[in-house]
Amino acid sequence: MEFNLSTEDNKRLAELYEKVQSKTRLFLGYPVSKDFDYTPLLPFLQYPINNLGDPFTESTYAVDTREMERDVVRFFAELFRAQQDNWWGYVTNGGSEGNMYGLYLARELYPKAMVYYSDSTHYSVQKNLLLLNMPNIAIRSQANGEMDYEDLHNSLLMNRQLPVVIFANIGTTMTEARDDVKRIKGILKNLAIKNHYIHADGALSGSYSAFIEPRPAFDFADGVDSIAISGHKFLGSPMPCGLVIVKKTNRDRIARSIDYIGSVDTTITGSRNGHSPLFLWYTLKKLGMKGLKERAMHSLAIAAYAEEQLKSLGIEAWRNQNAITVVFPAPSKWVCQKWQLASESGLSHIICMPNVDKDQVDELICDIISDPEQINYSFQRGASEITKDMSFSNTF
Amino acid sequence: MEFNLSTEDNKRLAELYEKVQSKTRLFLGYPVSKDFDYTPLLPFLQYPINNLGDPFTESTYAVDTREMERDVVRFFAELFRAQQDNWWGYVTNGGSEGNMYGLYLARELYPKAMVYYSDSTHYSVQKNLLLLNMPNIAIRSQANGEMDYEDLHNSLLMNRQLPVVIFANIGTTMTEARDDVKRIKGILKNLAIKNHYIHADGALSGSYSAFIEPRPAFDFADGVDSIAISGHKFLGSPMPCGLVIVKKTNRDRIARSIDYIGSVDTTITGSRNGHSPLFLWYTLKKLGMKGLKERAMHSLAIAAYAEEQLKSLGIEAWRNQNAITVVFPAPSKWVCQKWQLASESGLSHIICMPNVDKDQVDELICDIISDPEQINYSFQRGASEITKDMSFSNTF
Repeated sequence: MEFNLSTEDNKRLAELYEKVQSKTRLFLGYPVSKDFDYTPLLPFLQYPINNLGDPFTESTYAVDTREMERDVVRFFAELFRAQQDNWWGYVTNGGSEGNMYGLYLARELYPKAMVYYSDSTHYSVQKNLLLLNMPNIAIRSQANGEMDYEDLHNSLLMNRQLPVVIFANIGTTMTEARDDVKRIKGILKNLAIKNHYIHADGALSGSYSAFIEPRPAFDFADGVDSIAISGHKFLGSPMPCGLVIVKKTNRDRIARSIDYIGSVDTTITGSRNGHSPLFLWYTLKKLGMKGLKERAMHSLAIAAYAEEQLKSLGIEAWRNQNAITVVFPAPSKWVCQKWQLASESGLSHIICMPNVDKDQVDELICDIISDPEQINYSFQRGASEITKDMSFSNTF
Repeated sequence: MEFNLSTEDNKRLAELYEKVQSKTRLFLGYPVSKDFDYTPLLPFLQYPINNLGDPFTESTYAVDTREMERDVVRFFAELFRAQQDNWWGYVTNGGSEGNMYGLYLARELYPKAMVYYSDSTHYSVQKNLLLLNMPNIAIRSQANGEMDYEDLHNSLLMNRQLPVVIFANIGTTMTEARDDVKRIKGILKNLAIKNHYIHADGALSGSYSAFIEPRPAFDFADGVDSIAISGHKFLGSPMPCGLVIVKKTNRDRIARSIDYIGSVDTTITGSRNGHSPLFLWYTLKKLGMKGLKERAMHSLAIAAYAEEQLKSLGIEAWRNQNAITVVFPAPSKWVCQKWQLASESGLSHIICMPNVDKDQVDELICDIISDPEQINYSFQRGASEITKDMSFSNTF
């Protein structure tokens, strides 16, 4: 490859390209789709596109993709059953910014609120809470990663005088557990706590939960006040991006304090990436509802396959209902490194993103069973017997 | 153009492309370089590059450009004369995130501090302060947009019991005024205020102030604790990006509270764009110190030219010392729209980014003098006489 740089820099860049290429091929441990193809959109990369400020307000800076961004926001507002004409949102730089926005809105509405979240919540949320200076209580998780509702009930009971912010996980990082928003609403009702705000972190599962039957309780119709999702996970994008959808009435209330400082911009960042909304828009247009649903079904089928295959080896694999994440005891270090599997407390997981197919699952399993360092598993059958059964047997 | 979409969507995208193209050609009012060419890097856009977490910590997610990001951080840490081995930083999603990071660090170090900033400060800073819940005082600006040091002195005097955070502008949005960090340090010393933190917002001018003689007082050697710059402004990038550099010792102090929540990631976002560090790295390698300096000198020369030409028409144009922003009474609405000129209190400006040349300046001036709606100016010479003198006379 030729990058018009010095020989040394050229070499470094070529090596980087090779690394990126090979490392992308081999990962199953991160919730990142890699089957996108935005080649037709690359000409846009020549231009400094910037969706400065609010996507629903025009700007003098006209090199933008606000129109497409509004389409993307509208699509997900409808998918998440937001009340007609009472939604607002924007394309963020990732799930974390969307969560921060939801929590920020909650704090502005209820400055004295206590925040509750399960201890399976991603660490970035605690960083957000620290940044936003919001007092908070971690709630115990059940074994599957879902919030322990009894512990939530008891904690709320002891702080009934405070407004409540619930940070609900729609797919935890490690086990893809979904907190049940309807059940949480029930607890709040039971304790007669009226001043509450529920934010749903749908970074991974939020994007496809609407296609699942029975539909998980996670969206506006189920009682949330805001939802954040990632764009680079289920949909796929070369750079991290995401989306936050909130109730317009709530956004308008904070707009007042923002207006006081002479701005109509209620986004967090100001200058905003105009390419990522275009990537998301393109994907939505290419796939449509039907394609998105197929994408979700494919992931679920592969996850079911991976779970079965691992179990058939005697490995204690499991997954939450309708999850694309399969959890199992951590394999040895080199397998984790090769497949970029994150591990926590002796557990690893693979996340069957839409690009993952049976061959990749088989290849991982082949590494696991043929690993001499393997210590966590005792296989019920011999390796040769197992490999014979599998579809990958002809790919090696 | 063919995007493999439905006829209607294809048409919309083609129209968008045309708009982006034509609107990029015609802007002089935003501090965005548009002369970048990252064509050789476009193959990287096929991959989900993510510089997850701290650029100086390895991650199991290996599809990254952390190595190049560290180069970029090191380059600017040295350019900004940070103390050897006492710097840390990362590539952000834009100037605003870098400012938020600096203020966040300041708050963690001095939780009871009062923040001071001039009233010429960009509105996003007040949004950041609101988000971070930091009490603050706006200081009067001088006519040129620079902080009024007497007002700062008096305000500090009345709050001497509080730790101080100074938010210094290294180039305000409207007039590109630079607050003098040495002078601010002098005031703090004079009042014997030891607990202080100075953050420099160098969104525009920070990137090239190091190349100017006499060198403005804006960096670590002059006494700042952190600097944020934009990457999509002076350097140029298809998407907003930026850089924040802080003292490593300060970053390590907040790392402790972050470590408490089980993470070594002290960045704000978590998942981070891995393409923008690559763009910045590429530009630094292509240009080198010499090229960067030439780029700055070109901008200053064009700004001087624009100021002179406007003045020669009797238009009250002016600019701050060594600024690439030329301020003048706002032209009529269509001229502002055509050239995407932001206006505030009857003033507009053009920002002579490295891509701006004399022809563009001349073309704008031609629009101004030939505008029948023009009300703010009374020209000293006739339009035909003026155009005759100018280099653009042969471009029409």
